[in-house]
Amino acid sequence: MDAIEVITTKRDGGALSTAQIDWVIDAYTRGAVAEEQMSALAMAILLNGMGRREIADWTRAMIESGERMDWSALDRPTTDKHSTGGVGDKITLPLAPLVAACGAYVPQLSGRGLGHTGGTLDKLESIPGWRASLSGPEMLAVLRRAGAVVCAAGSGLAPADHRLYALRDVTGTVESIPLIASSIMSKKIAEGTGALVLDVKVGSGAFMKTRERATELARTMVELGADAGVRTVALLTAMDRPLGLTVGNALEVAEAVEVLSGGGPSDVVELTVRLAREMLSASGTAGAKDPADALKDGSAMDAWRRMITAQGGDPDAPLPTAPETHTITAPATGVLSRLDAYAVGLAAWRLGAGRERREDPVSHGAGIVLHAKPGDTVHAGGPLMTLHADDPSRFPRATEALHDACQIGPTPAPDLLPLIIDRVG
Amino acid sequence: MDAIEVITTKRDGGALSTAQIDWVIDAYTRGAVAEEQMSALAMAILLNGMGRREIADWTRAMIESGERMDWSALDRPTTDKHSTGGVGDKITLPLAPLVAACGAYVPQLSGRGLGHTGGTLDKLESIPGWRASLSGPEMLAVLRRAGAVVCAAGSGLAPADHRLYALRDVTGTVESIPLIASSIMSKKIAEGTGALVLDVKVGSGAFMKTRERATELARTMVELGADAGVRTVALLTAMDRPLGLTVGNALEVAEAVEVLSGGGPSDVVELTVRLAREMLSASGTAGAKDPADALKDGSAMDAWRRMITAQGGDPDAPLPTAPETHTITAPATGVLSRLDAYAVGLAAWRLGAGRERREDPVSHGAGIVLHAKPGDTVHAGGPLMTLHADDPSRFPRATEALHDACQIGPTPAPDLLPLIIDRVG
Repeated sequence: MDAIEVITTKRDGGALSTAQIDWVIDAYTRGAVAEEQMSALAMAILLNGMGRREIADWTRAMIESGERMDWSALDRPTTDKHSTGGVGDKITLPLAPLVAACGAYVPQLSGRGLGHTGGTLDKLESIPGWRASLSGPEMLAVLRRAGAVVCAAGSGLAPADHRLYALRDVTGTVESIPLIASSIMSKKIAEGTGALVLDVKVGSGAFMKTRERATELARTMVELGADAGVRTVALLTAMDRPLGLTVGNALEVAEAVEVLSGGGPSDVVELTVRLAREMLSASGTAGAKDPADALKDGSAMDAWRRMITAQGGDPDAPLPTAPETHTITAPATGVLSRLDAYAVGLAAWRLGAGRERREDPVSHGAGIVLHAKPGDTVHAGGPLMTLHADDPSRFPRATEALHDACQIGPTPAPDLLPLIIDRVG
Repeated sequence: MDAIEVITTKRDGGALSTAQIDWVIDAYTRGAVAEEQMSALAMAILLNGMGRREIADWTRAMIESGERMDWSALDRPTTDKHSTGGVGDKITLPLAPLVAACGAYVPQLSGRGLGHTGGTLDKLESIPGWRASLSGPEMLAVLRRAGAVVCAAGSGLAPADHRLYALRDVTGTVESIPLIASSIMSKKIAEGTGALVLDVKVGSGAFMKTRERATELARTMVELGADAGVRTVALLTAMDRPLGLTVGNALEVAEAVEVLSGGGPSDVVELTVRLAREMLSASGTAGAKDPADALKDGSAMDAWRRMITAQGGDPDAPLPTAPETHTITAPATGVLSRLDAYAVGLAAWRLGAGRERREDPVSHGAGIVLHAKPGDTVHAGGPLMTLHADDPSRFPRATEALHDACQIGPTPAPDLLPLIIDRVG
């Protein structure tokens, strides 16, 4: 077998055999298939697609390129959530301790932000002392102590996916549903979770801009989970506007803590509770305690404090703030009919909340606080949003990104997505 | 502009703008576009195609990545031929001096064999002393002395094509008509010839297996020539069986010398004369002397001897021969109805006439001598072909390649291609 045979099979519209997929993923991991060969194959997959069996083989081969974690030593089921990424999506922060407080273990390997979407690890790192890198035994210790752990994936987990992800990022081959689905699911299955709830975002701030593409991605991932013995369901949720009222690392941590204190924006609370119920149900641990109650009675907050402390963080330390602010005001009185998620994400990125290159640092204090969400009434000259940055030179380009982000009209836009659009699984 | 923008434009079915093409070829030449980005783009081009304007821009950008030769110092027109490659295709050897003998200059930059097709430079290098590498001033001196020169392209000519050709070879992106056409034409236009005749091979031993694909390639190249001011015509010619009676480097040189002596196999003579007439006509120098006459009166042979001598070769030196031979006999009496070009080419390659990797040497003596061509009567036990190799260990695998190469029946196969199938231009 050689790389050209595999590439030309897919190029000419054929299905890759199990043997071809095993060979090419293994050879790529070993360096025997070159980057330029894998990128040609990725483009052929993007343009000619893969069938269900091929995607399952591809995912399995990527899992087998590395180690698979095992939580069978734990006395309760494991369950996890993965979001395809959005703007203001801090849901993991209240969700993981909330589910732990309701009786399941949450062993979450998470990622960093790239482009206009934020990353859970970047957000948590704004908490003084908190460490993202844990060994396997450390993960187990945190899980036992707090019931939840959120940390970075080690390099031994699906190394083929690790290389392929970086390659796709620079070769225009990201937007392939088979490759997105297998990348997400190989990491989540290798993580060893027993159940998985996928939050597939839809809208301008999401990878999937349309409901149709999001549904296809959700179905593909739910099938992959089922094929691998992981109980998997997916929710399609709105990402046409930002989630909550904050975008940016420390700003989002503060909002998550509000939710854990029983307050917080209604959309963040609603989605957190719904995802928690799905995670508990998928893991067979629903019923012991309802997530809405665990937010009110302080037990989720207790789990949060244990989780942060167990990873070296100080839950009582003040969060970093950015010294400079700039408030954007409403140009007219009326209803905020639209607030474009992508524009807000791009502005936050330009303020310093995100990174341009993988190796760049992020600003923990930078970001945006929204003073109104679609449907709210705003007044001419009143505040719409406040930008936070370490340096005022960041404001002009961030403001430019927001130029068409808001619309004010007599009513909310009729095509605003419902917060929870659909459920697949 | 960046590579991802260019890749995604073509990936999503768009036409690349002139600015995008100029940028990506220049950046690739400078190393600012990585190999894995160019291979993803090549796959997107292969699968989504390019329009006429895009192919012309792509070709022009590749020419502009390097130098362009200029023969305006010469007192007669220049004309050249390019074959898309086949088995036993030694036509350049008698053709270049023949056209020189009839009044035009032939400044041919040629290539080496890869895979089952032979290369003109490998063939000529079997002549003791002959040198393929010439500087620009040396080329001009050989042209002035002999009227024809056949040598290797310097690295300054279309360097973007040079890199892209090697990349396509390992990434399954060879079989794209826009990329094949622009690769060939960028080199030929940069070579500076005033007129060009393309010999587009059709059949099992050719890149283009069908007449339809060959016609599309021929039309694309003729248009590119016209757009660049090079008078270009194309012949579609048969490559379902080998050309002539020899396949292999020195064996083909000997056959070329037979043709230059007024003899040689009828198909080689017919195609050589036809291509010579087309080259002279395209360059506006037809009429002074007919090529059929120049083969008979010794003037083409004189030009050959001058050309070989001017490049350091000894036209009277004995050619290398392989010490080992093995004759394959006819299993039955009848008409040789088929003789598959690809199988014969593969067998010759396995005998050592070709190379596996670009850096491998070739055997000058190895190859195949055919004792019958389709349409000839053969007798059970009589010789069909003789294999030549430096080592008898080469024979089993070569013989294996020939297992289904010959068919013997009552008549020639009705679907044998005519030697000259069509003319485009």
